[in-house]
Amino acid sequence: MQQCGPSSPSCSTSDRLPLRALNTAACGSETSAEPQKREPADLSRMRPIVIFYGFYLLCFVLGVACVVCVCLWNSKWRGGFAWDGSSLQFNWHPVLMVTGLVVLYGNGAVLYRIPLTWGQNKLPWKLLHAALMLLALVLSIVGLCAVFDFHNAQNTPNLYSIHSWIGIAATALFAMQWVAGMAGFLLPCSPISLRKRLKPMHVWLGGSILTLSIAACISGINEKLFFVLKGINMTQPYSALPPEALLGNSLGVLIVAFGLVVLKILSTREWQRPDSRPEDMAYTPLLQEENE
Amino acid sequence: MQQCGPSSPSCSTSDRLPLRALNTAACGSETSAEPQKREPADLSRMRPIVIFYGFYLLCFVLGVACVVCVCLWNSKWRGGFAWDGSSLQFNWHPVLMVTGLVVLYGNGAVLYRIPLTWGQNKLPWKLLHAALMLLALVLSIVGLCAVFDFHNAQNTPNLYSIHSWIGIAATALFAMQWVAGMAGFLLPCSPISLRKRLKPMHVWLGGSILTLSIAACISGINEKLFFVLKGINMTQPYSALPPEALLGNSLGVLIVAFGLVVLKILSTREWQRPDSRPEDMAYTPLLQEENE
Repeated sequence: MQQCGPSSPSCSTSDRLPLRALNTAACGSETSAEPQKREPADLSRMRPIVIFYGFYLLCFVLGVACVVCVCLWNSKWRGGFAWDGSSLQFNWHPVLMVTGLVVLYGNGAVLYRIPLTWGQNKLPWKLLHAALMLLALVLSIVGLCAVFDFHNAQNTPNLYSIHSWIGIAATALFAMQWVAGMAGFLLPCSPISLRKRLKPMHVWLGGSILTLSIAACISGINEKLFFVLKGINMTQPYSALPPEALLGNSLGVLIVAFGLVVLKILSTREWQRPDSRPEDMAYTPLLQEENE
Repeated sequence: MQQCGPSSPSCSTSDRLPLRALNTAACGSETSAEPQKREPADLSRMRPIVIFYGFYLLCFVLGVACVVCVCLWNSKWRGGFAWDGSSLQFNWHPVLMVTGLVVLYGNGAVLYRIPLTWGQNKLPWKLLHAALMLLALVLSIVGLCAVFDFHNAQNTPNLYSIHSWIGIAATALFAMQWVAGMAGFLLPCSPISLRKRLKPMHVWLGGSILTLSIAACISGINEKLFFVLKGINMTQPYSALPPEALLGNSLGVLIVAFGLVVLKILSTREWQRPDSRPEDMAYTPLLQEENE
């Protein structure tokens, strides 16, 4: 397929790089003899960036709301936190999985989509992406340790429910993805041909891991609320939707909304970093793009 | 952004339409004076189509496995089917939701990606897409009726769990998506500008509905297995992973695998129908593409 590149003389740099067009418009350094005629085109190029920041703000707000909600649920309704094999140790599990495998993971995934980072050296952003993902992975693993340790202390078997199968698959794939991403995109010795083949798989697996995480979270919240809201000892059952049930369900809705916003940001082509789009690779050498 | 179109003289028709290139190669009607030099290029164009059919076969096999698995579970382990307010009526719920909201829905979603349909009039495929989606929607609604009716007969409240919230949201969005798709893409009076704006939203919402369906299915399977495998009356608990638990968990794994394969097919750009890709719209009038 013919793409925007050196062989397309009518394809200008600003056509390829919306941010450059935006910067040009903002700085007033337009070289055109008729700037007033270019203005509508510049405004139309700014539009996707403005819409992106709307979605990015939504992603950030939903992420914060998820963390607040899961912390509130486990501290106020579930008795707080400990690391003593009791149910207070279990409470670390939802908090760390939602914070690590959903919120930090989602924010790390959309990092390259922020237009403010496009005109800059990519390496620091790659390091930040890797660091955020490592933090997300560590929190997820500690979150798994919390529930394994709790189960072992209570003589409860591990890894029998479909919730646990999906959750462990998400974390295992995430760990593999991080190691493969580190080796493939950050080690200077990794060949360009490997990077080219790895990239679409890395992006697709990234979205798939988030989809698995959402399914694991929803099934986990559902299971927990059925376990604890049984309507015994003067408490209301889940089916009566007491405040704790409403809070847990709201957390589920927030997680799904956050995940769908992240997947929307990841799948929108005009929000991709220009030198990551195939048509832009034609004029930006991959070696320079990956290693600069 | 400069796209492949009439203003790109170096962009040939076969560059834009892999299927045409494939047909040309297969029929031997190549007009080049040096066909042996073109062969590697034709083979490289066939490669994504061959890989597509591998994924499509996987999608089909996983879909059939999901339906077989959910039918087997509810007929052999859950006692079969009835419409009498008993638990046998509930058994329609998982069967119809998995068949409608996951398998038929996923197969309807990837219909336009089948390269065999690309060189043909689009209208019959649009009608088949709409018909498959309508059948999927009807099955999903009957599946919801089954559980509502069962709950009402048992005096159990409806729509309190996060599983039910996500499931009802998926079905409601699916119904809205079908009506909007019908009005926007099939009614001859709908303006081209509306179709252009509707299409990215239709594609994104389609993937989001599938993500919601997967989350609803996993939480539903998890909930059902905890409800029925309590380890009383000489039966083994869920935690002992009896055969029914293994079957239910396997169904969950199959649903997730099916969903991820469908999302992979939907998100891979080179598998999109050529006249649905922005760069191809430049030379294929939307009116012709939508109404032909």
